[in-house]
Amino acid sequence: MLDLSLPSGLRDLLPDHSAHLAELSASLQQVFAQFGYRRLFLPTLERLEVIERGLPAAALADALKFVEPGSGEVVVIRPDITPQIARLYAARPDALPSPARLCYDGPVLRARAKRAGRPREVYQAGVELLGAAGAAADAEAVVLLVRALERVGLAGARVEVGHARFAAAIFEAARLPEAVRAAAWEALARKDEAALARAAAKGRGSPEAKAAVPALAGLYGDGALERGRKLAAGVPAALEALAELEAALRLARRRGLGPVAVDLGEARGLGYYTGITFAGYAPGAGTEVAVGGRYDALLARFGRPSPAIGFAIDLEYATQALERANGRTPTGVPRPTGAARPARAKRAGKTQSRRRAR
Amino acid sequence: MLDLSLPSGLRDLLPDHSAHLAELSASLQQVFAQFGYRRLFLPTLERLEVIERGLPAAALADALKFVEPGSGEVVVIRPDITPQIARLYAARPDALPSPARLCYDGPVLRARAKRAGRPREVYQAGVELLGAAGAAADAEAVVLLVRALERVGLAGARVEVGHARFAAAIFEAARLPEAVRAAAWEALARKDEAALARAAAKGRGSPEAKAAVPALAGLYGDGALERGRKLAAGVPAALEALAELEAALRLARRRGLGPVAVDLGEARGLGYYTGITFAGYAPGAGTEVAVGGRYDALLARFGRPSPAIGFAIDLEYATQALERANGRTPTGVPRPTGAARPARAKRAGKTQSRRRAR
Repeated sequence: MLDLSLPSGLRDLLPDHSAHLAELSASLQQVFAQFGYRRLFLPTLERLEVIERGLPAAALADALKFVEPGSGEVVVIRPDITPQIARLYAARPDALPSPARLCYDGPVLRARAKRAGRPREVYQAGVELLGAAGAAADAEAVVLLVRALERVGLAGARVEVGHARFAAAIFEAARLPEAVRAAAWEALARKDEAALARAAAKGRGSPEAKAAVPALAGLYGDGALERGRKLAAGVPAALEALAELEAALRLARRRGLGPVAVDLGEARGLGYYTGITFAGYAPGAGTEVAVGGRYDALLARFGRPSPAIGFAIDLEYATQALERANGRTPTGVPRPTGAARPARAKRAGKTQSRRRAR
Repeated sequence: MLDLSLPSGLRDLLPDHSAHLAELSASLQQVFAQFGYRRLFLPTLERLEVIERGLPAAALADALKFVEPGSGEVVVIRPDITPQIARLYAARPDALPSPARLCYDGPVLRARAKRAGRPREVYQAGVELLGAAGAAADAEAVVLLVRALERVGLAGARVEVGHARFAAAIFEAARLPEAVRAAAWEALARKDEAALARAAAKGRGSPEAKAAVPALAGLYGDGALERGRKLAAGVPAALEALAELEAALRLARRRGLGPVAVDLGEARGLGYYTGITFAGYAPGAGTEVAVGGRYDALLARFGRPSPAIGFAIDLEYATQALERANGRTPTGVPRPTGAARPARAKRAGKTQSRRRAR
């Protein structure tokens, strides 16, 4: 009897779910095109030595690498599409003048599931705006994500913004010793105020700066920007991050965007994002349906230093959310255990479940 | 200086070409959906022992295989999507009752380019009609291919049909010795009448049957069916193949299809196809833009014996043809050397350049 199973962690998407996902994917590409983003098709394989420049360590560890029998080269099945776009942008300035608005749609694959029961192969659609710094580009990315989620029918979706340098600046001001930094980021990701306070106690900064550390855990929701401004009063780098975020939100409002949720304690994409960050949530999706942010340090690693911002939408989570929103039984993968969106009142573990490779 | 090159034989599709390809891909899926075909998303990797059941030897040799570091399993990056659909159809009769109309869109990858200068990764869109035998299913597949090519704007495209068992029956009747069979198929693929005559001379069949062998090279174009019927007069198996082909074409005409070109000397997909075969050509494409046919023996190899028919469209060739048809400079890959569509007057080499893995 032939065993018809797939390699561990891989799946087929059956017709109903596939149709929903294809429909969603097509709608997203339409919105991306309306905003001037141009589609790219990029190969399934990359040379490891190239693509590793664009991958955080965790993503690199999870990438599926092997030696190509023909060439003897170590290659990787793409675990993320952004580094491919970074490579192409650096390699072909003739074809991709700056600023470049680019978009994609396709699967990415990992060697291992990120969590037990999750698929290793994930369908993504995303955009990258390369060579554009500043509030206007930041606003464009946030507006595009909101419009894209609206357009596919996720009217209940919510986008939450933060800034990669805000908490880092507070940690810096509190002069947290290197030894407690990692624990502090973990605690912040869990919104664990007590653990943050313990880390702060070891800081060598001023009492005000140290007091700001545990307060980061509560810097979301109504008035988060005002509270953040008070907290960061003596920390110029944090105020600068805040100013960038507020400038982006101001421009986004001018482009017709409604109120956007803020979380200044966001710890996503640590070491990758350099400016504003954002995530999209939709009722009915087990976790965030989109993540993105500014990553101004990446392109230099490929030899064409440029500011950049982008986001990726997880097509399966978005499809699940859409299926629920339309009263259909979700036909896709089960929600990861324990990764349901926690209530506001007890957000412990919130961002941990949302951490992404990028 | 970082070498930003891709693994040998792989490419990026730049924005203009990608946009054209994406547009074409979306239109095809719309036509497929209108005909009742349901989309599937299938994984990038398969276990080799499963997928090799659905691959002709040449395709298997060209598939990119490697050992998964985590599991130790030998896996393959899919070189073709049809065997994946065969696997799923066999594994999930609950989800895919017969007849099943299924379609797909995605890249397939090979270890080596099929010809020098050709890419290893090919974007395909295709359909499979599983569990349906007979002329109605055959006609549906041909009509769908013609409508799909029309719909994407390839008004000048031409579909040519043949039958996998016609020439085989003539070879059988001529009692060609095993030792010359391979050479005879090669000669037929080149439309090489002289070489076919040499092979026929070694046959042990009747003079009439042996005389039919070289005549196969000319069984295309106007009156091919009538000439084929005379040629096959004493060969019941060939007449049966012809009757299947004619029944399919009759039903296709009833569904509104115009005249379809016939080539009874087609040797494509030897050992894979079991009934009618067809290919789509478009002015401006270097080679055929679509190939397909009936493959009634494949599904049994996966444990769910069923008749089946399908086709795959090469999205890049089709995009190239469309770019030329629209007066745009083709932005994609160069045409393979020497693979331009030869004039009717000298068709030597015609089918060789059209041979596909499936």
